[in-house]
Amino acid sequence: MNCEILAFGSEMLTPYRQDTNSLYLTERMNALGVTIVAKSVIGDARGVATGAIRNALARADIVLMTGGLGPTVDDITREAVADALGVELYRDTEILTALYKRFAERRRPMPENNVRQADTIKGAVSLANPNGTAPGQWIDTVNEGHRKILILLPGVPHEMKAMFEEHCEPRLKQIVPPGAMATRMLRIAGLPESEVDARTAPIYTKFADVETTILAVTLEIQLHFRCIAANVKQAQARVDELCGLVEDELGEAVFSSHGETLEQVVLFFLEMRGETVATAESCTGGMVAQRLTSVSGSSRSYFGGAVTYTNEMKTEFADVPAALIDEFGAVSHEVAAALAEGIRERSGSTLGIGVTGIAGPGGGTVQKPVGLVFVALADGRETEVVERRFSGDRERVRYQASTLALDLVRRRLM
Amino acid sequence: MNCEILAFGSEMLTPYRQDTNSLYLTERMNALGVTIVAKSVIGDARGVATGAIRNALARADIVLMTGGLGPTVDDITREAVADALGVELYRDTEILTALYKRFAERRRPMPENNVRQADTIKGAVSLANPNGTAPGQWIDTVNEGHRKILILLPGVPHEMKAMFEEHCEPRLKQIVPPGAMATRMLRIAGLPESEVDARTAPIYTKFADVETTILAVTLEIQLHFRCIAANVKQAQARVDELCGLVEDELGEAVFSSHGETLEQVVLFFLEMRGETVATAESCTGGMVAQRLTSVSGSSRSYFGGAVTYTNEMKTEFADVPAALIDEFGAVSHEVAAALAEGIRERSGSTLGIGVTGIAGPGGGTVQKPVGLVFVALADGRETEVVERRFSGDRERVRYQASTLALDLVRRRLM
Repeated sequence: MNCEILAFGSEMLTPYRQDTNSLYLTERMNALGVTIVAKSVIGDARGVATGAIRNALARADIVLMTGGLGPTVDDITREAVADALGVELYRDTEILTALYKRFAERRRPMPENNVRQADTIKGAVSLANPNGTAPGQWIDTVNEGHRKILILLPGVPHEMKAMFEEHCEPRLKQIVPPGAMATRMLRIAGLPESEVDARTAPIYTKFADVETTILAVTLEIQLHFRCIAANVKQAQARVDELCGLVEDELGEAVFSSHGETLEQVVLFFLEMRGETVATAESCTGGMVAQRLTSVSGSSRSYFGGAVTYTNEMKTEFADVPAALIDEFGAVSHEVAAALAEGIRERSGSTLGIGVTGIAGPGGGTVQKPVGLVFVALADGRETEVVERRFSGDRERVRYQASTLALDLVRRRLM
Repeated sequence: MNCEILAFGSEMLTPYRQDTNSLYLTERMNALGVTIVAKSVIGDARGVATGAIRNALARADIVLMTGGLGPTVDDITREAVADALGVELYRDTEILTALYKRFAERRRPMPENNVRQADTIKGAVSLANPNGTAPGQWIDTVNEGHRKILILLPGVPHEMKAMFEEHCEPRLKQIVPPGAMATRMLRIAGLPESEVDARTAPIYTKFADVETTILAVTLEIQLHFRCIAANVKQAQARVDELCGLVEDELGEAVFSSHGETLEQVVLFFLEMRGETVATAESCTGGMVAQRLTSVSGSSRSYFGGAVTYTNEMKTEFADVPAALIDEFGAVSHEVAAALAEGIRERSGSTLGIGVTGIAGPGGGTVQKPVGLVFVALADGRETEVVERRFSGDRERVRYQASTLALDLVRRRLM
């Protein structure tokens, strides 16, 4: 079966706001074995909305709609669906009573236009909304000889999600034919997309029943696999088989095979090996620290560190000799190593990370161009320093440098 | 005039990838005075694509399409547009020659299926693509009695943008009736969305010709204003007038009136006042540092700082007495103040920021619940400490805490 998703609301037709509900709904529908054929954002014009719903009915078995169920005149989803199906709206007294009760409980008078939220499409089942005033609607109908499911959900994400999981998924499982999708993702660090593709294509092209997508997402490479089969077990087995072969090919470049982030993997290894780490960052300005501490429980393995933006701070917090900076420059192999060694000593951690580089857009020279980064990892015995030249703007250079630093720790501990 | 945007490509119908080209195109079309009535993502099925183009032609004057111009069988935009218009495709020999030449210059043989990129819709003007192999197409036609513009652009963002700016904007300016849109945005820190709305609605509702949208974007409140008038000057004057009144009402809660970020504003004020700052962060784990250093040139006013994740690091890098931590706890008014004062002393900056709190999800108690944050600002004479209880998950608590810290500096320097 297939599905089309419509999001109603003019605010999502501005340059400032995206429809993100459809990403969540796509994931859940995929898990049921349903493919999305199209998705649209529609403004608040009733005629345009009616046309969009009619088109969706013509090409999809399931039409999932979000938004436009509020009390104002801009909220036209109920009317547009009724128009598209050629049926009437009626004001449901039970919903109306519940609305009055909800406002009464909060000791607020109900604004006159809220009564519109009780308007129900003839033939629809009303879906309770415990998190807001807009009830959803579920319509199971026959349109031009074909069975069609229309689902109206609120646009507020947490209301929409709760309603979908509680009321829609159980109903959809009754309707969607058995068959299920399994998905899995591998995350890869330290290899370019083209190399990942070149090395894995000979493997994944042999799995015609598994769809493989290679994406470069926030500067990491992801390999997504998905398979639809008669049941979940079968689908999962095929995905896992392919995943295993790809992991063998890419080796330690695969940092995650079950959805973990690089930060989570690094902290997991640190804890497992009984190691601790501290950071001394120049060009990344705290990004490595911030990424590590974004994981709950990171304090067990991460002590903290220093953002040594000036030369003086490098000396003050990581004991980098001023003479070393004078001799080799702040952006150098030597200073990166000294930062890692110094912060390790000062913090008492078993590992120390040092990062220095030129994030740009200014500050580059012929010898030391924008994007040049040195990342060091010290463990008290030896200090490994990696030099890279990253491309992209300031944020891309910083993010890539912080990823390199985290990945250095991961590879050391594997 | 109005416009509909269609993005072709099945990869944007997965949970992993969004169409972002439409945000750019919306901004540019808005600037020309054109409103977007709907936008859609369409998969690789030719029939669905043809239907979507027909629907768009029925409701919009301009149909902007991105993607599906590549050489593979999945690239169906050319065929679908021809189908929708009921016209033929022909293989343009001039484009074909250019394609062969492009490959020859790179000393690579042209794959057989690349000849499809020379397929041109009858009546279309071909748009050169200096950045890739897929040429665009521009069609100015009459459909069911109405003038319609159809534009086919490549899906790769930098190819699409270059082609739109070079070939489409000049043509559109000839066609779109005079009238232009002016926009402006105010960014607000430290006030909830409901209060911003309550205080500004009496003002903006008096400007019927200016569309006002209040958005909560990554935990900051934005007020977007836009006005379409006979010319840019007139539109801008109305937007500026409303902006001025709203700024008067909200006072120093408005941190930006010309698009600057909070980080940029803070660094601007620091430089203007000859002040410098350093940071000592516990729960934010380097996020304040990372945000400040995301701005190019931040090293002029930001010295660096410490991520003092353990108690020992608070003592080592910000001279917080161990006894103070024992007495009041690491998350306390006193320790926040000591962090700010200590890092200021140690770094030699004129201002010091200290942040401590409980980001969650673990670590909360009845006395010190998750979301409790203390932010301190020291200037050598007095130390201001603000206590807040933020809601949301770990990342939201951390982000709000870092925003509070930056805003404290801004308000001090205003």
